[in-house]
Amino acid sequence: MKKLRFERVPTHIPGFDKLVNNGFKKRSMNLIIGGAGSGKTIFSVAYLVNGILKHNEPGMYITFEEKKEELYENMSEFGWDLAKLEKEKKFIFLEYSPERVKKLLVEGGGLIENIITRYNIKRLVIDSITSFVLLYQDELTKKEAALSLFGLLRSWGCTTLLTSEKYIVNMDKVEGGGLEFEVDSIILLYHVKEKGIRKRAIEVLKMRGTKHIEKTLKMEITGTGVTIYPNRIVIFKHEEND
Amino acid sequence: MKKLRFERVPTHIPGFDKLVNNGFKKRSMNLIIGGAGSGKTIFSVAYLVNGILKHNEPGMYITFEEKKEELYENMSEFGWDLAKLEKEKKFIFLEYSPERVKKLLVEGGGLIENIITRYNIKRLVIDSITSFVLLYQDELTKKEAALSLFGLLRSWGCTTLLTSEKYIVNMDKVEGGGLEFEVDSIILLYHVKEKGIRKRAIEVLKMRGTKHIEKTLKMEITGTGVTIYPNRIVIFKHEEND
Amino acid sequence: MKKLRFERVPTHIPGFDKLVNNGFKKRSMNLIIGGAGSGKTIFSVAYLVNGILKHNEPGMYITFEEKKEELYENMSEFGWDLAKLEKEKKFIFLEYSPERVKKLLVEGGGLIENIITRYNIKRLVIDSITSFVLLYQDELTKKEAALSLFGLLRSWGCTTLLTSEKYIVNMDKVEGGGLEFEVDSIILLYHVKEKGIRKRAIEVLKMRGTKHIEKTLKMEITGTGVTIYPNRIVIFKHEEND
Amino acid sequence: MKKLRFERVPTHIPGFDKLVNNGFKKRSMNLIIGGAGSGKTIFSVAYLVNGILKHNEPGMYITFEEKKEELYENMSEFGWDLAKLEKEKKFIFLEYSPERVKKLLVEGGGLIENIITRYNIKRLVIDSITSFVLLYQDELTKKEAALSLFGLLRSWGCTTLLTSEKYIVNMDKVEGGGLEFEVDSIILLYHVKEKGIRKRAIEVLKMRGTKHIEKTLKMEITGTGVTIYPNRIVIFKHEEND
Amino acid sequence: MKKLRFERVPTHIPGFDKLVNNGFKKRSMNLIIGGAGSGKTIFSVAYLVNGILKHNEPGMYITFEEKKEELYENMSEFGWDLAKLEKEKKFIFLEYSPERVKKLLVEGGGLIENIITRYNIKRLVIDSITSFVLLYQDELTKKEAALSLFGLLRSWGCTTLLTSEKYIVNMDKVEGGGLEFEVDSIILLYHVKEKGIRKRAIEVLKMRGTKHIEKTLKMEITGTGVTIYPNRIVIFKHEEND
Amino acid sequence: MKKLRFERVPTHIPGFDKLVNNGFKKRSMNLIIGGAGSGKTIFSVAYLVNGILKHNEPGMYITFEEKKEELYENMSEFGWDLAKLEKEKKFIFLEYSPERVKKLLVEGGGLIENIITRYNIKRLVIDSITSFVLLYQDELTKKEAALSLFGLLRSWGCTTLLTSEKYIVNMDKVEGGGLEFEVDSIILLYHVKEKGIRKRAIEVLKMRGTKHIEKTLKMEITGTGVTIYPNRIVIFKHEEND
Repeated sequence: MKKLRFERVPTHIPGFDKLVNNGFKKRSMNLIIGGAGSGKTIFSVAYLVNGILKHNEPGMYITFEEKKEELYENMSEFGWDLAKLEKEKKFIFLEYSPERVKKLLVEGGGLIENIITRYNIKRLVIDSITSFVLLYQDELTKKEAALSLFGLLRSWGCTTLLTSEKYIVNMDKVEGGGLEFEVDSIILLYHVKEKGIRKRAIEVLKMRGTKHIEKTLKMEITGTGVTIYPNRIVIFKHEEND
Repeated sequence: MKKLRFERVPTHIPGFDKLVNNGFKKRSMNLIIGGAGSGKTIFSVAYLVNGILKHNEPGMYITFEEKKEELYENMSEFGWDLAKLEKEKKFIFLEYSPERVKKLLVEGGGLIENIITRYNIKRLVIDSITSFVLLYQDELTKKEAALSLFGLLRSWGCTTLLTSEKYIVNMDKVEGGGLEFEVDSIILLYHVKEKGIRKRAIEVLKMRGTKHIEKTLKMEITGTGVTIYPNRIVIFKHEEND
Repeated sequence: MKKLRFERVPTHIPGFDKLVNNGFKKRSMNLIIGGAGSGKTIFSVAYLVNGILKHNEPGMYITFEEKKEELYENMSEFGWDLAKLEKEKKFIFLEYSPERVKKLLVEGGGLIENIITRYNIKRLVIDSITSFVLLYQDELTKKEAALSLFGLLRSWGCTTLLTSEKYIVNMDKVEGGGLEFEVDSIILLYHVKEKGIRKRAIEVLKMRGTKHIEKTLKMEITGTGVTIYPNRIVIFKHEEND
Repeated sequence: MKKLRFERVPTHIPGFDKLVNNGFKKRSMNLIIGGAGSGKTIFSVAYLVNGILKHNEPGMYITFEEKKEELYENMSEFGWDLAKLEKEKKFIFLEYSPERVKKLLVEGGGLIENIITRYNIKRLVIDSITSFVLLYQDELTKKEAALSLFGLLRSWGCTTLLTSEKYIVNMDKVEGGGLEFEVDSIILLYHVKEKGIRKRAIEVLKMRGTKHIEKTLKMEITGTGVTIYPNRIVIFKHEEND
Repeated sequence: MKKLRFERVPTHIPGFDKLVNNGFKKRSMNLIIGGAGSGKTIFSVAYLVNGILKHNEPGMYITFEEKKEELYENMSEFGWDLAKLEKEKKFIFLEYSPERVKKLLVEGGGLIENIITRYNIKRLVIDSITSFVLLYQDELTKKEAALSLFGLLRSWGCTTLLTSEKYIVNMDKVEGGGLEFEVDSIILLYHVKEKGIRKRAIEVLKMRGTKHIEKTLKMEITGTGVTIYPNRIVIFKHEEND
Repeated sequence: MKKLRFERVPTHIPGFDKLVNNGFKKRSMNLIIGGAGSGKTIFSVAYLVNGILKHNEPGMYITFEEKKEELYENMSEFGWDLAKLEKEKKFIFLEYSPERVKKLLVEGGGLIENIITRYNIKRLVIDSITSFVLLYQDELTKKEAALSLFGLLRSWGCTTLLTSEKYIVNMDKVEGGGLEFEVDSIILLYHVKEKGIRKRAIEVLKMRGTKHIEKTLKMEITGTGVTIYPNRIVIFKHEEND
């Protein structure tokens, strides 16, 4: 028997792709979990911008909360000119209410699918999935809705990043609203204080069909986006084990 | 009085069978509890594939969430060609909604039973039981439904693995939704960080009528599936006792 | 004033009877609390089997969940031939739904009482009481139902063991669903990990009218049942105090 | 201004009275909080029996759960012949349902008051108040009912002990169902493990208008009841402070 | 710009006034939070009695639970003759149900206001506010009711102490039912065990417009009331930081 | 690509502006989270007063709870003459019920917008947002209302501070009622005890589009307001990591 070789979608985020065998799996659903200020949006936009600049792959950013102008302003800090990319039809910004996504699930997602087809979108970011999850009351309907959404997303054929607004306090207790069992990969973004200084770290918790690095690594937000240091293992106090 | 000698169903997962007196008890119900990325699916599919390849025992994989194509792709990473086994009628993939299982309990399970009989299924995996458990609101109906389901499963005569999506944070507080008191065995899959590196471990918490190893042992996901190291006891920080 | 000398019902479980002044109090209600795999069923059946073999006292095992065949199979591991004892009318197996117990409380328990009288049952095990407790929603009705059940049980005149499915994580916070204040004794079965190896221990938390040993002692499941080591105090990590 | 000298009701429990300025305040309401096996019933009955034997003060024991025969049997262990004291009209045993107490609050408590007057009851024990508290759903009605009950109890003029079934895990977080703010004193009975051996201790948490000892002291259940060791401070692990 | 100099209301409780710039702010609302036996009532009554004796300022004590006779008895322990002060129209005792306070909020508080005017009340104690807070179900109506009550209290022009029945376990997590954000000051009374001995301490958590001492200080209940030791910092175990 | 240079709004709070690249982003929404006594109001008013005195920028203070007179009195402690600034039409005090804000969201905010336009308000403080958040029951409507409010606030064009009443116990678990994911920046105010002395600290948890200092720094309330010490890192006990 021969192994299937998954096609990979590199992020070109310095230090990241090597952790996961050269990038996300093509057409996969990937969950980025982190608290406020952990860098979810920067990570996600870097993924899209690098797709455009290095692979000429158009990307779409769907959001329930971010305002376009502010996002563009904030991202300019990293040298990313989203307005220009938008004019070139490479970067599509879509503000969308959670209710409309809900409706989408019933109707079949025509509008977004049209955009994806017309602009040949390859990379998709939904920032964040949390408001969508809040629409559903009990755990079962939540799980069912997530399954429907994931079905829709898969039918679009993009490689998708979903961000989830959660503080990761205890690293052994990741709660992603039940989504973490359906997605193809889970990336954890830590933002934890040590000796009075808050630090960032990243961990690939799972990636289906991929032998990935199982270390929690230092991550920094720099002037040009996000950088990961594959040789800098980050140990938080409550997991010391000497 | 003489002891009854239970028939055993070996998993052929390297290192596992010795822990439990040569395998699962024939016709038993076994609960595999673990969080996202802990290796539940790989463990379960290894059990099925080994049954086919080493014993020519057909196996069925019932899932509420996994997509066939993706599962097949992901499992190919370990050298398992599920599509080929499916064509040979040795591996049966069944996507099934929790609601249909619920209905099954009322009607008596004809459809699945037919498949089991027709293909002579010996090994059964339900991955995962969590969505099914979510269908029931209170603890009593949950327990009753589990008892009904287990009754049905036993009537089919397979040796069954049920996976449960739970993070095992505190090793002394395993919550399996009440199922853990009804099943014949409980296998815990740990995925816990130590000094910034996430590690896997396995423990047989109980196995009725079986003198099993009571150690928590190192487990790894390798290129060929899952491997257990019977001589490598894993000690987590919060249970140190010196 | 002279002390009343309670009649005692020895379990003949090696090491146990000395802890509690030669056995359970005659006609008492005793609660065995432990998690999955802690040995509640083996302890309870040992109590019944020893009653039959050493005192010729018939015993009854009422269960809501265990299947007779499987119980018999599992217990054969310890050299106990329950099928043979059943044929000799010494061991009575009764599968009973929680709802029927509920009904029993209203009607007065005729059926079971008849069996007890006919077979001269002296030792009774209810394994487990948990499903029964789940039938009642609020704490008060739960307590009232327990009082009714206990009234019924006392009227039958047996020496009774009730098992309760609870993990005993924190040894100072035993939750028995409110039952622990009504019963005559509470036996805790621990199943806790230390340095990667799960160990068993037993503690007599209370026994009314009895000066009992207040130590937590090593317990093992052996080829012949349960053994307690009265000289082996077990100290769990979180209660160290030096 | 001169201090009022409260009349004191000694318990004659060895070591206790000195802690609280020679005994409970006359006509006071005193809450004894402890878990299963902590010694609440033995402490309470000792208080009543000593009142009878040393002061010729009749006592009443109101219970919602204990059976008379069993209580008498259990207490005989300490040399207390309650049946004899009952025949002499010194010890009154009253089994009473929580609902009847509820009704009592509406009607004004004639029946019990009659008994108290007829037998000249001076010492009263309610063992335990927990079932009564469970009758009320929300915190406010619970508090109001407690205030009504306490009003009734005060009108009877006895010195009263109320037991409450609570495990005292964290010594700084005593939850007495809101009662602890209304009573005149709170006595805590600890039953905590240390190095595998369960030990007893007692603490007077508050006593209004009384300068009491603020230490947690060793308590033992002996062949003659309860003994307190005023010179043996008990330190639990989680309050060490070196 | 010149600072306004708030008028101060000294408590004359030994050691306290210096902590808070010579006393409570005139006409302020002050919350005293502490558990059972922490000394809330003694602190509050000392505040009233000292106002009468040292400043000839009449005081009112509104309670939902304390009985007058018992309060007077208990307070006599500290040499305070409340009955005499009451006869002199200096000390007003008012037993008041929470429901009546609720009604008061709707009607505007005529009755109490009349008393305040007639007796020229300057110092007011409400002991305790907890039952009042229980009247309201959700957090918003609770907060609104508190705002109404505080508006009423402010209109009366007294300097007010409100006691709140809470155990202060974790000093960084003070829960005062939402009241703590509306009041002018918060005083915490600790009653915590150390090495088996319970000790008292006091802390001024906030006082608006006042530069107060930010230390937790030893407090004792003595024969003459409450004493605070401004030079004795109390360190609890869980806040050590060496 | 060139970076956009955000306009900055300096607070002139000693030590603060340097932490955040010279001040808040112009027209941004900034969340100040802290417990009772942490200094939220002083910080916010300092921001407004400094805007008036150093930049001649009028400011508005919207509150749901603070009384004008008391606020003015309390703030006079720091040398701030709010009454005078109000007369000069530089400081606008607006007491506003949460319900009216709710109504505002539906109607579009005409009244406040009029004030902002008429007085040319540049700096806005809402102290606190907590009561507003309490108006909404479930997390989704809460988030939607916050988004509406933020839309309104952005349309007004002010640089806004919102205070939130939360104790920050665990620095890795900041709960801002879901608001923390929508705002442009989060400032944490700590008020934590160390060795019996309560201390203040400040941390900028996130600021979009801004490279900010990631340290927790000493903060003090002084005679002239708030001062931050950029060289004094504050380490709380539970984050030590040596």
